[in-house]
Formats: sequence, structure tokens, C-alpha cells
Amino acid sequence: MKKGIKIVTIGGGSSYTPEIVEGFINRKLSGELPIEDLYLVDIEEGKEKLEIVGSLAKRMIEKSGADIKVHLTLDRREALKDADFVTTQFRVGLMEARIRDEKIPLRYNLIGQETTGAGGFAKAQRTIPVILDICKDMEELCPKAWLINFTNPSGIVTEAVLKHSKIKAIGLCNVPIGMVNVIAELYGVSADRIYIEFAGLNHLVWGRNIYKDGINVTQEVLEFIAKGKSPNMENIPDIELNKELIEALGVLPCPYHRYYYLSDTMLQKCLKDAEEKGTRGEVVRELEESLFELYKDPNLNIKPPQLAKRGGAHYSEAAVNLINSIYNDKKDIQYVNIRNNGAILDLPEDVAIECNCVIDKNGAHPIHIGHLETSMRGLTQVVKAYEELTIEAAVSGDYNQALKALTIHPLVNDSIKAKKVLDDILEENKEYLPQYKK
Amino acid sequence: MKKGIKIVTIGGGSSYTPEIVEGFINRKLSGELPIEDLYLVDIEEGKEKLEIVGSLAKRMIEKSGADIKVHLTLDRREALKDADFVTTQFRVGLMEARIRDEKIPLRYNLIGQETTGAGGFAKAQRTIPVILDICKDMEELCPKAWLINFTNPSGIVTEAVLKHSKIKAIGLCNVPIGMVNVIAELYGVSADRIYIEFAGLNHLVWGRNIYKDGINVTQEVLEFIAKGKSPNMENIPDIELNKELIEALGVLPCPYHRYYYLSDTMLQKCLKDAEEKGTRGEVVRELEESLFELYKDPNLNIKPPQLAKRGGAHYSEAAVNLINSIYNDKKDIQYVNIRNNGAILDLPEDVAIECNCVIDKNGAHPIHIGHLETSMRGLTQVVKAYEELTIEAAVSGDYNQALKALTIHPLVNDSIKAKKVLDDILEENKEYLPQYKK
Amino acid sequence: MKKGIKIVTIGGGSSYTPEIVEGFINRKLSGELPIEDLYLVDIEEGKEKLEIVGSLAKRMIEKSGADIKVHLTLDRREALKDADFVTTQFRVGLMEARIRDEKIPLRYNLIGQETTGAGGFAKAQRTIPVILDICKDMEELCPKAWLINFTNPSGIVTEAVLKHSKIKAIGLCNVPIGMVNVIAELYGVSADRIYIEFAGLNHLVWGRNIYKDGINVTQEVLEFIAKGKSPNMENIPDIELNKELIEALGVLPCPYHRYYYLSDTMLQKCLKDAEEKGTRGEVVRELEESLFELYKDPNLNIKPPQLAKRGGAHYSEAAVNLINSIYNDKKDIQYVNIRNNGAILDLPEDVAIECNCVIDKNGAHPIHIGHLETSMRGLTQVVKAYEELTIEAAVSGDYNQALKALTIHPLVNDSIKAKKVLDDILEENKEYLPQYKK
Amino acid sequence: MKKGIKIVTIGGGSSYTPEIVEGFINRKLSGELPIEDLYLVDIEEGKEKLEIVGSLAKRMIEKSGADIKVHLTLDRREALKDADFVTTQFRVGLMEARIRDEKIPLRYNLIGQETTGAGGFAKAQRTIPVILDICKDMEELCPKAWLINFTNPSGIVTEAVLKHSKIKAIGLCNVPIGMVNVIAELYGVSADRIYIEFAGLNHLVWGRNIYKDGINVTQEVLEFIAKGKSPNMENIPDIELNKELIEALGVLPCPYHRYYYLSDTMLQKCLKDAEEKGTRGEVVRELEESLFELYKDPNLNIKPPQLAKRGGAHYSEAAVNLINSIYNDKKDIQYVNIRNNGAILDLPEDVAIECNCVIDKNGAHPIHIGHLETSMRGLTQVVKAYEELTIEAAVSGDYNQALKALTIHPLVNDSIKAKKVLDDILEENKEYLPQYKK
Repeated sequence: MKKGIKIVTIGGGSSYTPEIVEGFINRKLSGELPIEDLYLVDIEEGKEKLEIVGSLAKRMIEKSGADIKVHLTLDRREALKDADFVTTQFRVGLMEARIRDEKIPLRYNLIGQETTGAGGFAKAQRTIPVILDICKDMEELCPKAWLINFTNPSGIVTEAVLKHSKIKAIGLCNVPIGMVNVIAELYGVSADRIYIEFAGLNHLVWGRNIYKDGINVTQEVLEFIAKGKSPNMENIPDIELNKELIEALGVLPCPYHRYYYLSDTMLQKCLKDAEEKGTRGEVVRELEESLFELYKDPNLNIKPPQLAKRGGAHYSEAAVNLINSIYNDKKDIQYVNIRNNGAILDLPEDVAIECNCVIDKNGAHPIHIGHLETSMRGLTQVVKAYEELTIEAAVSGDYNQALKALTIHPLVNDSIKAKKVLDDILEENKEYLPQYKK
Repeated sequence: MKKGIKIVTIGGGSSYTPEIVEGFINRKLSGELPIEDLYLVDIEEGKEKLEIVGSLAKRMIEKSGADIKVHLTLDRREALKDADFVTTQFRVGLMEARIRDEKIPLRYNLIGQETTGAGGFAKAQRTIPVILDICKDMEELCPKAWLINFTNPSGIVTEAVLKHSKIKAIGLCNVPIGMVNVIAELYGVSADRIYIEFAGLNHLVWGRNIYKDGINVTQEVLEFIAKGKSPNMENIPDIELNKELIEALGVLPCPYHRYYYLSDTMLQKCLKDAEEKGTRGEVVRELEESLFELYKDPNLNIKPPQLAKRGGAHYSEAAVNLINSIYNDKKDIQYVNIRNNGAILDLPEDVAIECNCVIDKNGAHPIHIGHLETSMRGLTQVVKAYEELTIEAAVSGDYNQALKALTIHPLVNDSIKAKKVLDDILEENKEYLPQYKK
Repeated sequence: MKKGIKIVTIGGGSSYTPEIVEGFINRKLSGELPIEDLYLVDIEEGKEKLEIVGSLAKRMIEKSGADIKVHLTLDRREALKDADFVTTQFRVGLMEARIRDEKIPLRYNLIGQETTGAGGFAKAQRTIPVILDICKDMEELCPKAWLINFTNPSGIVTEAVLKHSKIKAIGLCNVPIGMVNVIAELYGVSADRIYIEFAGLNHLVWGRNIYKDGINVTQEVLEFIAKGKSPNMENIPDIELNKELIEALGVLPCPYHRYYYLSDTMLQKCLKDAEEKGTRGEVVRELEESLFELYKDPNLNIKPPQLAKRGGAHYSEAAVNLINSIYNDKKDIQYVNIRNNGAILDLPEDVAIECNCVIDKNGAHPIHIGHLETSMRGLTQVVKAYEELTIEAAVSGDYNQALKALTIHPLVNDSIKAKKVLDDILEENKEYLPQYKK
Repeated sequence: MKKGIKIVTIGGGSSYTPEIVEGFINRKLSGELPIEDLYLVDIEEGKEKLEIVGSLAKRMIEKSGADIKVHLTLDRREALKDADFVTTQFRVGLMEARIRDEKIPLRYNLIGQETTGAGGFAKAQRTIPVILDICKDMEELCPKAWLINFTNPSGIVTEAVLKHSKIKAIGLCNVPIGMVNVIAELYGVSADRIYIEFAGLNHLVWGRNIYKDGINVTQEVLEFIAKGKSPNMENIPDIELNKELIEALGVLPCPYHRYYYLSDTMLQKCLKDAEEKGTRGEVVRELEESLFELYKDPNLNIKPPQLAKRGGAHYSEAAVNLINSIYNDKKDIQYVNIRNNGAILDLPEDVAIECNCVIDKNGAHPIHIGHLETSMRGLTQVVKAYEELTIEAAVSGDYNQALKALTIHPLVNDSIKAKKVLDDILEENKEYLPQYKK
């Protein structure tokens, strides 16, 4: 007989880990998820952090009374053996690589951001070979396990897995759930009374219709937002979209749309911030250091409230909800990244999209979308083409695909800049990019 | 019994007219096209030019011995009655409007170009209401006539006609035929030995395969071009694409791709040119003035060689070839703009595309294309979305569609700049934009 | 403030009415549906039946203690005024027309069945003009009401409404819910533990995957069925599919598939039954007469158990569940007929399909399907083409469309027979087919 | 330097060979095709026929003065080495197998025809393994050669090659060219003045528009045909379509449509013919025997006129025209079978379709078709699904695919009959069906 659930978290030394641990504790206590083992896996360079956050996890579990065994290990294969769910939140090259991703584009007057534009491209090049390696291990050691990916760029990484592996994978992001929460706050109601029909790509998703208690309140929400109450996230500078655009769109853009809709303003902001207070990565690095200081406190046995500022709120909520609905065949609706398969008619069938899915024991089933409105369609299509080329480049190490990817990206849009930024990325990440053989 | 062919040229006072007249003369003399009447139509403001160029046309015909009656008129409806072919080469707002189209975007550090980006948007807003008016007249007065459009932006204008009129319309451009000629020159062979498989949109078309005498020479040509022999056109600053991009693409870009692939360089060039020697429109204005001075010479009875510098070479060749193949059911292959209908699977069915078509008495039949390669696809899709929104805006006068169109255009790509440039365009063109009721 | 719900049932004099009334009573008593008014509407010819069944409905409600006002009327427009939900279960031409539909095809050695083949074609020709008339009234009198159609052929009728009216319409059928119940019985579990992924057309729907408690049991179920335990319905002769076919399919066919997969056997059975015991319509006519005798009993105040034999089991369950989920924004999954919109990639976007949908206050949202397996695809496509032509014929009265529809139908498949059966149908139904003007 | 062209004809002992030889002679003499070697290849069982027809070929060439070397061989690999064009006209199992294909279906009251229905299915099962074997040899011995297939069922065989081999293949049929000739005769004009827009599948192709000298005469032609002048072919019983159907269709069906549009009549005719005068195969067997008697005559050095009755008129014309246009990069339009690639939007991209193509040195480029009219679409889709399953079965030997293929074929349409006919086919062809391992 099957015993309790075995969960593996790759990148277990992440500062986010207390969030997901809290989520697991709650579901175990409620009786929904009979979690027996939680493996936190990291690599040699992350060993110290793994120890710190792993010890906190153990204290949290002990305090809660939930009967979950926590295992800390650097041996990924041992951890994966017979796993039921694998979550990923690792960062190839650590925070230093992120900071480089943010800074290289700025040299050429291009937006430098962790997941979008040239920075996101660099992150994808480092991450995809590693995730595919993990999947190869999973195919051998736990072929029936679910991979719940929230390693960024989440949509691109998930698509790489869907195209190049047999592992059942679902990509997650905290953006949609964050947007639901913002609308709920706007109305002063609980999040479960708000429902949004999402469609698009990860970090380029729109809320096409917004419902409060089943009533379509999209226009009302957009009017609110046009007045300045825009949804925001910790990771993104808080710049408001112009109200004329919001009215013209008629749909709710996500926080990352600022990079596309206000590219000039955001570039200036990135440049200024980098100079005055450091890039977001540099800010986060400090934040993380102080978080780890907190985590070391042997008396701390709950998730510290300071973690909320880190920018990943709702990640753990999304992951735990997803695992819960799969395990319990709940058939509820969640916002995830999944193979398109034609749900958005304007995109190829084999790419990843972000949309509303019915979640059951057999995975995520997209609620059909059809065609996107023209302006959403055009932007989505060009960014998706960039993403496909990015994956091809990451898998093959083909410079030509990489150059084409960056050239058509709306935040680069120039082949000379594309070449310069690409050459710098390849040079400064070469230890992480074995696929690019010169 | 049907008598000879009646051709109507709207915008007959254009400086290009001697080209097309020369084409008509040649086909009449060769016996291919029994042209009986040629109506040159213009508007009140163009009366003087019409007189000048019309007189030249008459002298050219007399000299040639071709028996074609030339009619000069400001009465469009009289001209259209029972026409067989209607060609359009008019310019709403005259050269002054073009110069404005080029200058307004420069204010906001955006590329200012006649047919591409915000400038092309402005031209489309002025032109579409007029072409649809012409089509309404045609539906009444010559419903079976063919409309051969080469009014720019030719693809957008043709799509507007295909969507909003019952008139049989084919859009023309001199870009593909120009590219064929450049390749022919490269090899020192006649143009009929070069064949290119084109696919894309007007002014955003790629040669996917290039053949010399049926042999695929695409790679060879790209290597030539990577070494600096890029195809160029008079209307476009002669900036070379970087060779890494050309290699990565593996297909032949058109001259207008420079605006997309070298957006930064081209912007700087536009700004510099505007300051130092005037925009292309200002240069052309002078050129045209000197052309009209030439045309006035009562002894001139041939197309003056100076016309070649004007930038529209091959327009008349394209138009006369097309009329000839339709009239004579030739089933040869020409490069035209036509309803997609699924020939490019990655675009909506009801949009205009530019591609190779078999031309016969019943029109232009696209040779099937299928899917575009990923990087071509992404760029084509976002520009097409811009074009569709541009047409919606031009037909309805809907500010929201206009703002979305400009916001997603790769050469604008920012909603704040989009709003500013849009507001200026609407204000400074208001006499030509009755559809925008405030 | 909105008062209670107003429901209108067109064809209220149907023998099925006690079923749906029972459903309404239960939901009212449970507090889920605050139904205030129930209008049972019928036509002059159905007045007597309306009185009988309407009186029974009133007695049932009184007995139950549910506070619902029942109105019996021949004035459809009065009933529709401000309705919230309109259900349809009418039969143009009454049972006599059905019997003709069954008999005419038999003359030409064609299967004669109420909803499938030439018989279903005839029923569609009579029904579509009437339903579109009802929709026209609804557009005027209750434009926001939901039309819940289960008038057969339900998929075709629903598609006609979706194509030719603005009314929000959802088509229902008892086949999917019936299949779920059969599988539940097979396992001896309650129906809510069985979940089937349906895809196809009304009366041509397959269960692509069958789950018990979230576990895929499709192969197991097919093995059961291959051994002879095939799902059946009262309206369809109980002939077993050959086990080789079931194995080859790998999916669960619906009861109506027998007409396609066993066309020869079913034809012989139809011919024999017609001769020996009368067509299904004739059997049902007697059944209905005895039902109405029962209904007349002034002491009867519950749904009589004999109704179960009538063949429409689960209709009311489907309808009441659907209304409940719409009204209460339940976001549960039901099996309905809805605009394809690309959910099945192999069919046109504007046709009706039958599939799993998430039901909320805003209607039915299909769970995306993608491509059908090849053999399902081929059959579905040809039957859908028949359906589209059938609707075109019914709306326009175009003989050519009708002839093409029948010629390609797999159960006719011969233009000479198609013509003969069509001519008889048109002649013998002419009072109900004003659209066919000779 | 490349010497003259090397052509290989597989199935060189066919009675058709004198036709294609005549074609090669004419093109060689005209200077269009510098054919140097013609290899006629056959198998051991066909050795005698190969000798007879090969000797005739040599006499024909000698008489003509064309300098072509004819090689007769049983060694396929020797023949294929460095070939430029390979044509195929072989018959696995010889005429005896064809006669069985025609007779087995008749046992179950199903149409028995060489290429359509269950007979065509059987032929495909025998032929596909052999053609794929030939292609494997070609990949090794002449990877750049063109395969010109007219082995029946030509569309299915071509699709199998396109899906399972890298060889450049084009499928041919004499049906379209035959229809053009019939229309030309109807008007008493030469065939080059008639142009038809074809779309569909091999042996299920429609002429959507018919032009005489570029003028659309479709309606006129259909009226002629409705009066009884239907196009016919020697291989198909001469039964007229009913005029009501022809009017309803509005397009020109091909001769094989009779099997679909007059299935009942054709079945009766097949049954009667089989009893009274033998199946078509039996008739042809006698015809062939007398042809071979003629061929033996050492004084015969031209194509004997009796060959015209054989039923394959225009095959050689089609093949030689195709080779000519490829070799000479002619860019003319021919009617061939080719990968769909989306040219017909209603079919999968990877299937074979029959349509108008521009032929040049690089192959056949379909003129885009778009959507088929509804009734054409439905029939085409179900037959294509049958064809896809037939290919899957032939390649894999999977009984399930075979059973599904036959079950959905409009000329079988019953799974019990499908099983019976399939079992007989497999049993009686087992020596030719190694892929079906029991």
C-alpha cells in the first residue's frame, strides 16, 4: 500500500522555503495532504543556506505538531527516488548571476530585469540545461511524479520541459494569484469571491474578465486602476500605466506589462535605480542576507513576517494549492502554465501558455480561450516567438537562434544591441553555459 | 462587342505618371494590351500638376505612335464609369503631409518614415477613408473593374479595401521586384533568371528562397550580402545589416527590415538627416519640383531619366505586368498583396499578405506558404496586429484602437510615446481625418 | 430588487414535464433556486395535454410544500416576458410527425430514427424555424434569459440558435449523463464518483477518458463493455457493438454510435421492429397515452415511476443542474452543447459541440479538447458537415443544401436515395415547412 | 559534368510502358529532356512481360531515332544507382490480387473496386511496404532523385512516402488531366484552352472552377453534364450522376465520385458485372493478355492504338509533363498529389492532397485553396481519416487501425462488415502482408 506523500524541493536552501513549508504544514494538519517526507535538496555552493533554512523548517514542523520528516541533502538522485511531487525554486549561478542579468542590458540602454528581456534570456540559458537534467533523473527515478516548476522564467522553463522531456510538468507563477488578491483588496472582500479569466504567457498575462461573486466587474476595476490603483508586485518598480491605455485595452494587464507598455519610463527607472540604490537583485541580496540572519535564530519556529517583502508572496500558496488539487482530484480552477494544445488559437500547439485550468488527479486541463483580442495577440505572438527561439538556443547552444531571439524581443528590438548584449551574456556566464561550445 | 481597355489612374498628377504611361505605351505597341482610353484623375489642389504631367503623357503617346486617348479630369466619377482597371497613386494631404508624418515621430525619438511606424500610421489614417470612397464609386460605376493599388502603405490600404469593399483589389509594391533586380545585378544576369519565394507583409517581406535559373542560391546570396552588398532603395537610408544577423536569419530581408533590425541606428540616421539635409519627404519635394520643371518642357516627349532617382522605380513595371497578366490570362507568377485566406498559416485569414501569386484573368492566386520560420513569424504577427488595429482605427475613428495600434508597433513600443505621437498626428491632420469626431 | 426566478418551459404539455417539475421542487426546497414562477407554455393543439400535466404539476408542488406558482398558458409572449430561464421540449408536428420521420426512410432501406439520419434531418427542418421564432421573441421580451434547449436534434437546434440569434443558449442531452450513470452502475458506485471526458457532437459523443475517483479506468470499462455490458438507452434498440471495434476504438462510444458502427444491423432491426411492433414513435405514442391516463388521476401528486420507461431519463436532472450552476455560479463541470470556438481544433469555430464545460453565472466554458483521434475525427467531421448543411437548409429552405446534407450523411450516403427521401419529407411535412417555397 | 538524364521505371513490364516510352521519345526528340538511360525494372514473376514490353520499347526507340539506351533488369538497386527520376507503376500480387480486391468486398454487399473502398484498402496494404522499401533504396542510391508515383491508390501511397521517407515524391493520377480533356471535347477545343481549379484527394477530387480561355464556364459545364454528358473513365462503369445532385454541388465531381454519390447503384452494377462479365480486373486481364500478344509482334515499333482502351490514358502524359517541368524549371501548373501543408485548411498538414501546383526545378508548389465548401469538406475529411488510418495500418500492421479505417469508410460504414472483409483480405493476401504478424 502506498504510504504518505513524498515531496522534493529542489533549491531547498532558498529564502522562500519557510513559505512552502508553512503551506505543507497547514495541509498536513487539515488532513488534506498526508505528507510523510519532505526532501530539501541543494547544491554544494548552497549547503550553508540549506542548513539554516532546513533547521528552521524542522523547528516550524515540530512547533506545529505536523508529522512530516524533513531531509536535507545535496544528493538530488537520492531525494528524487520515488518522489510524488517535485517542486523547483533553484537559481543557477546564485544571486550574483541575477545581478549580472540585470546589469548587462543596462550597458546598452536596454531594460535589465530578472525574467523579461535580455536578463530573462540569460537566466533561461543557464536554467534550461539544469531543469532538463533534473527531468532526466526524474524519468529514471520517479517517472510518475509531478514537476511543479516555479523556477523563472517559469513559462519558458516549463515549455522547455514540455518539449524536451516526458515528465508531467506544470508551471507556476505568483502573478495571477497576486492579481486576484489585489482586486480582492480593492473591493475589501476575500480572494475567493474574485475570479479572473486569465490568458497569455507567464509574466505577460492579461485578465480578460474579472468577476466579483460571478458578476462581471471588469470595467469597474479598470476605472479604479485608471485612477492609479494599479496592481503591483515587490519585484517591479511601482510605475502606473497611463489611464488612456488602460481604457483602450479593456482588459487587466499584469504588473510585468509595464516593461512593454512603458518601456521608456521603465528603462529610465532601471537605470536610475541601478545607480542610486542598486538593481532589484542587489536589493534582494541584502534582504536575503538579513532573512538568513533571522532564520539562524534557534528560537524562530514560524515563518517570519519579514519574508513577505521578498517579492514571492503567493508562490507557496500556488504550489500547495496545486498539489492539493492534484492529490485530491478537486476539479477546481487554478492559474497555471501548461501546453497550449490549441487553447489559444493564435499560438502554436506545442508552446506553454498561462491560463485558467481545471486541476484534477490527471493534471491541469485548460479552459478553452479561442482567439485573443488583436493587440493582446500581436504582443503575445512576438514574445512567444522570442521564447521559442530562446528555448531552441538554450537546448542547442545555437548562436543564431539566440541572436534572432533577442533581436525580435520588444525590449531589445535591434540586432546590433542584441549581438552586444548576447556576447556579454555568453562571456560572463560561460561556466554555466556548456551548451555553447565555441 | 467589348472595345478597347479603359484605364483610370487616380492621382494622375503624380510625378510617377510618366513611368506608367511608358509601360502602357509599350504594351499597346506590342499588341498585348488594346488600351483605348487612359483617364488621369486628380483633385482640385493637384490640378496644375495634372495639367503638366498630363500634357507630357500626351506628348509621349503621340511620339510613340500608340493610339491611346488621354483624358485629364477632376471628375472621378466620370472617369470611373465602365473602367476596366483603376490604378491608384494618390497622396492625401500632398507632400506636406508626408513631411509632417516624418517629423512628428522624431519629436519623441521615434523613427519617422513614410510607410512604417507612426508615420505610416498617419498616412493610413488619411488614405483609408479616401480609398474606401473610391471603392464605393467603383461599386456603382465599374463594379467589375480591377483596383490595382500602389498607394502607400500599400498592404494596409489593400487590406482595408479587401475588408470593407466588394471591389476586386490587388496591392502592389516595388520592393519585391526591386529585390529581384538587385540579385540579378549581383549575378550580372537578367532579372527573369532570378526567382524569389517571397512571404510576409508589404514592406516587411522576406525572400525565403532565392533561385538563379532554378538553382537555390540563397546561402550564396546571403554571404554576398553579409559582406556588405545589401539591397537598397532610394527611399531608405543605405545602412547595412550586420552580417551576424544575416547569417542567423538564413533568408533575405527587404530594405525596410532595417527599421526593425537596426532600429537604433536608423533612428539616429533619421534624426541626423532631418537636421542636416531634411527628411526624405523634403528631399523628394525638391526632386519633384525639379521633375515638374522638366515635365513642363514642351519638347520633352519621353520619360526623363531623372525620374529614376525618385525612388519608385519598378512601380509602373509591376502595375503594367499585373494588368497584362490579368487581361491575357497569363498564369505567370508575380509578387503582390492579396487576402491571406490561410496561405500563411500563422496569420488571420482576412488580412493582406505579400507573396508570390499566379496571375490569371480571375486575379491573383497565392502559392501556398504554410508556416513562417519562428523569428519571421513573431515579427510578422505583431506588425500585422498593428496593421489590423490601424485599419479599425481608420475606418471607425476609434481612439482606443489607434492607441493600441501604436503602442504595440515595434518602432513605438511605449504607450506614453504612442499617446503623444497619436495626439499630434490627429491634431495636425485633422482636416483629413473626419472619422475622428471629438 | 430582483424577486424570485421565473422559468418558462416551452412544450409544457410534454409527458416529461413531471420530471423537470420534480427537479425544480427539490432545488426550491433545498434553498438553491428561489423559483417563484413556472410557466408551462404549449400550443392550441397541445392544450388538453397541457391541462392534464399542468394540473399534475400543481398537485406535485402543493404536496411538496414548495412555494412555486405554476402558470398554464398558450400565450408564449406573455410567458416569456422577463423570464430568467427558458427550457424547450416541444415537438413540432407532435408524435405523428416523429412516426413519419421514422417511417419515410425505411421506404428506401434507410435507418429511420428520430434524431439521426434522414429522420433527424426532417425533425430539424420543422424545429429550427420555430426555435428561431422563440428566440426572436426572447430578444424582445427577455434578452438576458438563458435558453436551455433539449428539443431534438439538440446539437443541431442549438447550433441554429447560436448562429442565427443573440440569445444565450446551451444545448442539453441526457446521453452523457446517462453514460456516466451506466458506468457508475457497472462499478456499483454513485454517479458522482465517475467522471468522463466527453468530446464530439450531440448523439455522436465519445467518452475519451473515464475516471473512477480520479483514476483512469477507461481500458477496464471497455473490456467490460466488450464482454457485452454496453450502455443503452430506452430510445435505441439494444444491440451490442462488436468487441473488436470496442478494442480498436479505445474510447467509449455513445448509444447512438450503433447507428454508425452497426448500420446494417440497425437497419434490419428498424425494419423488423417497424413491421412487428411499430417504430419507436409508435411504441412511445402508446406509452404516452397511458402516461397521460395516469396523469389524469386527481390523486396522483408525485412523478409516477412509469415515466422512467419513456426514454428521457436524466433530461430533467441535466436541465436543473445546469440552471442551478448558472444561478449559483458553481463552476462545476457539466456535459453540454456549446459553440466550438476552437475547443475541438478539427471543426469550424462556429459550430456546436458536446463536451465538458465549467458552468458559472456567465455560462458554459468548454474545457479544451484539441485534436480528436483520427477515426473519431473523420466521422465527427462528416456528420458536422451534414449538420451545417441541414441548418442552412432549414433556415433558407434551399433544396440544394438539403440534398447535399442528406447525400453525405453516413446513414444515407447516396444521392438518389437522398433525393427520394428528401422529396417525401418535404411533401409530407409541408404544413410545417414554410421556408421551402416551391 | 552531368551527363544525360537517367530514368528508372519500376514495374517496367507493365502494359502501360509503351505509353510512357512514347512520351520520353517525344521529349528527347524535341530537345527538352536529354534522356540518356531508361531502366525498366521488374520482379522475377514479371520477367517475361518485361522482356516483351522491353523489346517493344527498344524497337519504338530505334524507329524514332531518339538516342535513349533501354536497360531491362530485375536488379532494382543497380537500376536506382544515381537515377534522376524514378517512376513507379507496379502491382504487388499482379492482376490476380486486383481481382481478389474486387471480389472480396462483393461477398459482403460492399463495392469492390481497385482503388476505392475495401479493395483500395487491400491494395494499399500490399503496396505501401514495397514503396517504402524502394524509398529506402533510393535514400541510399539516389537520394536526390524524384519519385514520380502513379502506383495506386496513388494519393495514399504518396502520403505514405511523404510521411515515412525523405525522398522527394510527387503523386500522379490521370483523373484530373482526363477531366480537362473531357471538358475540352465538350467544347471542341484543345485541352490547353481549358483550365480547372482542382481540390481534394486522389480519386476524390473536384473541379471547383472550370475556365475556357480564362472565362469561368463552370455553370455551363454543369448544365451540360446534368443533361447526361458526364466525364467518364474506362475503369469505371458509366453511370450518370443525377442532375439534381450536380446542380446542388455547383462543382465538377470526378468519375470516382460515383462510388460515393451513387453508392447503391454502383454496388448493384458491380455485383451484376461481376456475375455477367467479370470484374474490371478480369476484363483488364484479358485485355492485357491480348495487348501482350500484340507487343510480341517483332514488327510492332509504335505504341499500338489498342492500348487506349486499357484505362490509363493520360498517365504517361502526366508523368512526362511533370518530369519535363521539373527538369526545365517551367513554372507551369499541373495537377498532382503533394503534402497538404495547410493548402486545404480543413485537413491535417501532413497528409497528401490533389490540387493545382506550380511545377519548377524544386518540385510542386500548391496554389493555395483555403476552405472547401461544406459538403466537399465533410466527405473529404472522412475519406482522409480513412486514408490516414490505412497508412498507419499498412506501416505498423496494427489490426485496430485497419478495422477503424474500414469502419468509417463511407463505402463500408459498418464495423461488422468491416471486420469480415478485413479478415478475408488479411487471410487471402497474407503472403504480401508481412507487417501483419499474428
